[in-house]
Amino acid sequence: MSDIDYMHHALSLGARGLGRTWPNPAVGCVIVKNDRVIGRGWTQDGGRPHAETMALAQAGDLAKGAVAYVTLEPCAHTGKTPPCAQALIEAGIARVVVALEDPDMRVSGRGFDMLRAAGIEVTTGVCADEARAAQIGFLTRITAGRPMVTLKLATSWDGRIATATGESQWITGPQARRRVHAMRAAHDAVMVGGGTARADDPSLTVRGLGIERQPVRVVLSRGLDVPLTGNLARTAQDVPVWLVHGPTADPYLRKVWIDLGAKLIEAPVVAGQLDPVGVLELLGEQGLTRVFCEGGGALAASLLRANLADKVSVFSAGLGIGSDGIPGLGTLGLIRLAQAQRYKAVATEILGPDVLTAWDRL
Amino acid sequence: MSDIDYMHHALSLGARGLGRTWPNPAVGCVIVKNDRVIGRGWTQDGGRPHAETMALAQAGDLAKGAVAYVTLEPCAHTGKTPPCAQALIEAGIARVVVALEDPDMRVSGRGFDMLRAAGIEVTTGVCADEARAAQIGFLTRITAGRPMVTLKLATSWDGRIATATGESQWITGPQARRRVHAMRAAHDAVMVGGGTARADDPSLTVRGLGIERQPVRVVLSRGLDVPLTGNLARTAQDVPVWLVHGPTADPYLRKVWIDLGAKLIEAPVVAGQLDPVGVLELLGEQGLTRVFCEGGGALAASLLRANLADKVSVFSAGLGIGSDGIPGLGTLGLIRLAQAQRYKAVATEILGPDVLTAWDRL
Repeated sequence: MSDIDYMHHALSLGARGLGRTWPNPAVGCVIVKNDRVIGRGWTQDGGRPHAETMALAQAGDLAKGAVAYVTLEPCAHTGKTPPCAQALIEAGIARVVVALEDPDMRVSGRGFDMLRAAGIEVTTGVCADEARAAQIGFLTRITAGRPMVTLKLATSWDGRIATATGESQWITGPQARRRVHAMRAAHDAVMVGGGTARADDPSLTVRGLGIERQPVRVVLSRGLDVPLTGNLARTAQDVPVWLVHGPTADPYLRKVWIDLGAKLIEAPVVAGQLDPVGVLELLGEQGLTRVFCEGGGALAASLLRANLADKVSVFSAGLGIGSDGIPGLGTLGLIRLAQAQRYKAVATEILGPDVLTAWDRL
Repeated sequence: MSDIDYMHHALSLGARGLGRTWPNPAVGCVIVKNDRVIGRGWTQDGGRPHAETMALAQAGDLAKGAVAYVTLEPCAHTGKTPPCAQALIEAGIARVVVALEDPDMRVSGRGFDMLRAAGIEVTTGVCADEARAAQIGFLTRITAGRPMVTLKLATSWDGRIATATGESQWITGPQARRRVHAMRAAHDAVMVGGGTARADDPSLTVRGLGIERQPVRVVLSRGLDVPLTGNLARTAQDVPVWLVHGPTADPYLRKVWIDLGAKLIEAPVVAGQLDPVGVLELLGEQGLTRVFCEGGGALAASLLRANLADKVSVFSAGLGIGSDGIPGLGTLGLIRLAQAQRYKAVATEILGPDVLTAWDRL
């Protein structure tokens, strides 16, 4: 087994934490001695314990002289617990292999310095591209001040989400819907526009997958026009509901929602609409690193217009609904095709009768 | 090598003729002796020679005592040439393995009878499902009196084919467009509506693949409103152009098109539109077994409404165009989702930045 093999193992462990470690990154760690894995760890729900702590605990005394594979530079600052670099030193680790430097310029390299100063051999950059892809949420928050956004579209061949009369259940089948729940679980938050909250009364929770930490439900509604008796209001005490509204939202409504258990976030309005850039920056300030947007068409269009959709997941069902149906994407105001951000297909998957295609920026 | 292995070989040979053997089926034949392939054949352009004739010619005297694998029941009637069953008998073939009985009830079983009467062992039904899928065009023409139809859609994520201003080149990339040419080549005819002929001035030929027999170009235009100076008119002498029009089409226009080299087909009009069922029956009468429909949106919608799209090929490009763009599919008038014919995804393929998804009826 090579460094790359063990790092792939650490990356797959790290991926288990996606959606549940925010504002911390989802890191994986594998400790290897004499070509045997003696410790495996990943960042736990809420961000603690760190991956290294969990892996070192498993390895115990065997860690002395072992190699640690970590997907992100071990932390060097003392927070609630001593830094991971210190823990690796104290455990007697002989060599540390890391995929990615810490993207935070204020601290990057410090973990490596601490390890090297203790006489530990440090190898960096192993599977760096894969680690960067896995950490895109954490990296986007550090470098751009906002969470990464996955935009979900689920439509007929011709991009419709309902018939002219509004019937929309169900376009896609149970396998695709189950996959949507798994995608929600791998994000810190699920986000919809107020129109979707009103039309579908969604609960936006992860169901059927046995997870403990639910993603935050984020609803964008300039005027806080979200049903006070719907699923979101009813469950706001149990699973976080964050309502992003404009400066003119009714003070009484704000109080009612706070009493229901929601968090209220006031965001800037531009040209009569909540500004998606401003909204995402505010969500980043709250610690979110990965946001899964499930529509509706107006919010999806505003994200695409502002080039804020980092990934797009298109669920396609096998039917045409026709141009008299309701479109899943609002107006973009394109004059020339060259104005549109282009994406490339990176993966496809057949889910029962339906297809999921994953797209990254080209 | 088993019967199934050799039949797969014969099926892949038969597939070479798809789109070029109409009105005959595209059949494959392999002749095997002592576990060695001594003859390979497939129906040639225009339907002659038959697969068996070609394979027997390759095998020569070695055919005596050999096994012949044929994807469709050998013909038993004397046409321009003696029947293939007779040729197999005369060559001294000892055993014939066939995938599919001839679907034409008037002749099915006769080839088998002739072979058995000559003392040849006959095995049938080997890879019958695969053979049926390969012969769907021929079978649909025999059983339903019309060619099978593959509907192509090539759109943005949201089902659009152009911006609001009409810019449509290019939605998909060169790999996808090359694939479209290969799909055209595997069909007897390429079909578009008059609106597409007017808007895009397409040539609808297969380019860059070195094929000799081009598919027929079929244009549906009730009033023969197709540009007399466009690519289709200009090339009608070289590659067939068939214009399907309504009963009231201008006699002068009819004469001009006939002089240009086009074939004119008068079809029934229902509710002011060319009736797609009637049109396809007329195309079946002309011998077409496989039609590739490339739009536009109104024709595609009329095929879906009448449940005439046997297969759907969706090319999806990585961008949103928005609901102000031009839809790739017209109105279907659905009230309930349950009214729509559903399809299941059977294959996906990433083509450069784009994705092709193939759908069959569910």
